[in-house]
Amino acid sequence: MENTDLILEGRNAITEALKADRSIDKLFVIDGKHDGPIKKIVSEARKRNIVVNFVNKDKLNDISLTKKHQGVIAYTAAYDYVEVKDIIEEANSKGEPPFIIILDSIEDPHNLGAILRTANIAGVHGVIIPKRRAVGLTATVAKTSAGAIEYTKVARVTNIARTIDELKKQGFWIACADMDGELMYNVDLKGSMAIVIGNEGEGVSRIVKEKCDFIVKVPMKGEITSLNASVATGILIYEALRQRDYKDN
Amino acid sequence: MENTDLILEGRNAITEALKADRSIDKLFVIDGKHDGPIKKIVSEARKRNIVVNFVNKDKLNDISLTKKHQGVIAYTAAYDYVEVKDIIEEANSKGEPPFIIILDSIEDPHNLGAILRTANIAGVHGVIIPKRRAVGLTATVAKTSAGAIEYTKVARVTNIARTIDELKKQGFWIACADMDGELMYNVDLKGSMAIVIGNEGEGVSRIVKEKCDFIVKVPMKGEITSLNASVATGILIYEALRQRDYKDN
Repeated sequence: MENTDLILEGRNAITEALKADRSIDKLFVIDGKHDGPIKKIVSEARKRNIVVNFVNKDKLNDISLTKKHQGVIAYTAAYDYVEVKDIIEEANSKGEPPFIIILDSIEDPHNLGAILRTANIAGVHGVIIPKRRAVGLTATVAKTSAGAIEYTKVARVTNIARTIDELKKQGFWIACADMDGELMYNVDLKGSMAIVIGNEGEGVSRIVKEKCDFIVKVPMKGEITSLNASVATGILIYEALRQRDYKDN
Repeated sequence: MENTDLILEGRNAITEALKADRSIDKLFVIDGKHDGPIKKIVSEARKRNIVVNFVNKDKLNDISLTKKHQGVIAYTAAYDYVEVKDIIEEANSKGEPPFIIILDSIEDPHNLGAILRTANIAGVHGVIIPKRRAVGLTATVAKTSAGAIEYTKVARVTNIARTIDELKKQGFWIACADMDGELMYNVDLKGSMAIVIGNEGEGVSRIVKEKCDFIVKVPMKGEITSLNASVATGILIYEALRQRDYKDN
């Protein structure tokens, strides 16, 4: 979050941002007993499903740029999020079966930016990211996305596993990317489909992996065993695109 | 080049490095009239085809970490380069038709690292990079390659266009990646093959593009028109791998 415009500090600034329904990525609130204004901020944030982190004064002072945070600092999103239903509507409006990428906790903004770029170019209808333990639509992501952030829809959800359950109820097939899966050529990636990509270090979390209909892998024949997250996502997106738009049979 | 071990400064250090045939990425020499030791360094560097950059004193002082550069600073490679013939021998020893990636001036070390990572995992036999106007095997590239730099052969050549001519004489087909090409599914990427990937901003240079047998493109259906260089390379490498190892027909 290099862009200082994207950090709000102090009770008034944050109260106004909440009133205006501005997208807030994260709210940091001082630990301990809270007075009226801070209680109000926390309750308004919770109504909007904003992640609230209670931290001590040293941490807040560290984050603060103005050194006048009054016990509250908010990271606002550089761009607005949509709802999952908006992504599905995007596919419907194009007359295409929905194709969604779910990122189970990508942390590196350069990876998220590169993935949005690939998603846009390949005609993916939208990307779903989690609220916690993942990078959001920051200024660095916007820059690395090379403009894709202006077009490709991104939904941010509280619980990836629950979102997968909802997509399955709507007829989606869910494929998780993992090394122990089936070769991507042998998995049917057509139809209403979401592909889940895991965290850079740890891959897809166990609870999410259990929800998936297939585990799919990129073929590997070298000495090392892990692709860069944005490259792996690109390869899987394009295998899906090949099957969806170009496969002979 | 964050790793300070990789910068050599001063006449003795660089004279010894040249004698020991240590891989030097770039040599910076002060502008103007040269005395004997510097003349000797420049002539030894040229014998070894090392790129020599003449710069003014301010530039040298800027680069210098020790502030005792005595008019010469060398950036050494974190890892050793091979010759193009070593890459072809690697393929022969595996009983496979050679598959090479040629990078026509990748500048971002994170892109080169990610490309080496993909090349290793996909079983590419080696990567060719140019000596000038491109990142070499620096410490950042080594780190981003996630270990691939230890295995995947990298050759560094003076003139990419001339190297392509030599590969063609040896029966290679050369495919350039560019937006105005044929859809990658419709180009035969089997056999002795090199794929040329262009610079992040400018793509493949005109002189190199004219040497290519095919122009090949990744399908695009979004609003933006340029993939991240390492993602584009990954998608093309995997389309080649699919055709070479997995294609039904």
